[in-house]
Amino acid sequence: MGPSPRLALGVAYRGGAYQGWQSQPGGRTVQDTLEAALAAFVGTSAAEGLRTVCAGRTDAGVHALQQVVHIEPPVARDPFSWVRGTNTFLPADIALQWCQPVAPHFHARNSARARRYRFLVLESAVRPAIESGQCGWVFHPLDGAAMRLAAAHWLGEHDFSSFRAAGCQSNTPVKTLRRVDITQRGAYWRFEFEANAFLHHMVRNLMGCLVAVGQGRQPPDWAAAVLAARNRDAAAPTFPPDGLYFMGPLYDAEHNIPNHVPGMDWLP
Amino acid sequence: MGPSPRLALGVAYRGGAYQGWQSQPGGRTVQDTLEAALAAFVGTSAAEGLRTVCAGRTDAGVHALQQVVHIEPPVARDPFSWVRGTNTFLPADIALQWCQPVAPHFHARNSARARRYRFLVLESAVRPAIESGQCGWVFHPLDGAAMRLAAAHWLGEHDFSSFRAAGCQSNTPVKTLRRVDITQRGAYWRFEFEANAFLHHMVRNLMGCLVAVGQGRQPPDWAAAVLAARNRDAAAPTFPPDGLYFMGPLYDAEHNIPNHVPGMDWLP
Repeated sequence: MGPSPRLALGVAYRGGAYQGWQSQPGGRTVQDTLEAALAAFVGTSAAEGLRTVCAGRTDAGVHALQQVVHIEPPVARDPFSWVRGTNTFLPADIALQWCQPVAPHFHARNSARARRYRFLVLESAVRPAIESGQCGWVFHPLDGAAMRLAAAHWLGEHDFSSFRAAGCQSNTPVKTLRRVDITQRGAYWRFEFEANAFLHHMVRNLMGCLVAVGQGRQPPDWAAAVLAARNRDAAAPTFPPDGLYFMGPLYDAEHNIPNHVPGMDWLP
Repeated sequence: MGPSPRLALGVAYRGGAYQGWQSQPGGRTVQDTLEAALAAFVGTSAAEGLRTVCAGRTDAGVHALQQVVHIEPPVARDPFSWVRGTNTFLPADIALQWCQPVAPHFHARNSARARRYRFLVLESAVRPAIESGQCGWVFHPLDGAAMRLAAAHWLGEHDFSSFRAAGCQSNTPVKTLRRVDITQRGAYWRFEFEANAFLHHMVRNLMGCLVAVGQGRQPPDWAAAVLAARNRDAAAPTFPPDGLYFMGPLYDAEHNIPNHVPGMDWLP
């Protein structure tokens, strides 16, 4: 029997209990937790060197519906066995969603053509309870039309330095923001972002500015001035992470990566 | 200044961290947590004897969008001050939603004409992650038509002893089930129940039987036989509480109790 093919895995998690995706010495991270579960599934002797490469590193407190990782499997198993078996070793707030063989040139990060994020915000005089940790919260009402005007200034290819956290490891601040959709369902606002890639804290920094415009503290055109400044000090404070969901990367059709998971029907 | 009028309060909570609603010596319950927060808001000297009376006691792990309680306020405050002030003393998974004066004859439990519950169930080969603790889970697909036929046998006034937990404190097993609506949104099933009142574990026991029919382990008419048996042993096992939400009581219009809270737009 030849070597097992590279595998792609879909991972969903609620990020509140974790210090983000990326492995840290002594840290409680999603990557460390997932790799430990994969190791438990394949058995100790095979587990050495089993590492995951992900499509998008998420911050502490950020959730994912569809994180995608690839691995070089040290053992051959039926794809759904990876899902069922690994999930028995994962805590309740993380679960593999699917598993499938991919071509040797598939790379979870480098093959991704785009990433999608959703931000959910409760607009209410009262803070969240049943959805605490799972959505943002604004007390003062938001003006959707003003926020859409603001977001329109950001569409396309730009230097997003004003929305970039210190310590961001991207080799360029130039990204292409393809879509910002702002909709409402009852008391909840949904912000959807799609770009070829995002800088560190970029979605949360865009959100901080959108909320400043939505609450009338800044006019919509201020969004253009912030972008043009290429300076983090020009933007609003970073919005808290609670309502942020990584909805997944997009790949070329040849890789045949699943595009929908059940959790996408759960959220407003 | 005369005595302060009786107040009604709307309470939302995620029940996973609590041993149910009802106060217990040494227990971590929603009622104990709420009464401690109310006491902190009014101040120690006024707090003595401040007790809540609720519309429907929920079990361990059960959530509420709209629990309704009444209190005899020991101090006079603006209604929204009760909400804002008490919420600062409540943990993130409990929040008052509204507060309003009610007539002296309003009683959160005795005035309720009906109660509503919602049960959410994920139908998927993979267990929940982002919604863990917040919805039930079935691996095998459910047949909606079969479940609707089963539920129709239960509508109206019946002796629901077959669905009653040992230790239920209701003075009669005869209740009137007014509505069971079963709908789907993506991978999630929504079961809505409305009755004048429910026995202890009644919704979870009805759910156990609906799932048995929905997965083809029993025919729809079996639901009628279980009801007729008036014997708990005739029914299916009690379904786990994770997906159960108390959507609130219904009162006569004269009491003018709010009927909608933001969390109702959050759930599928």
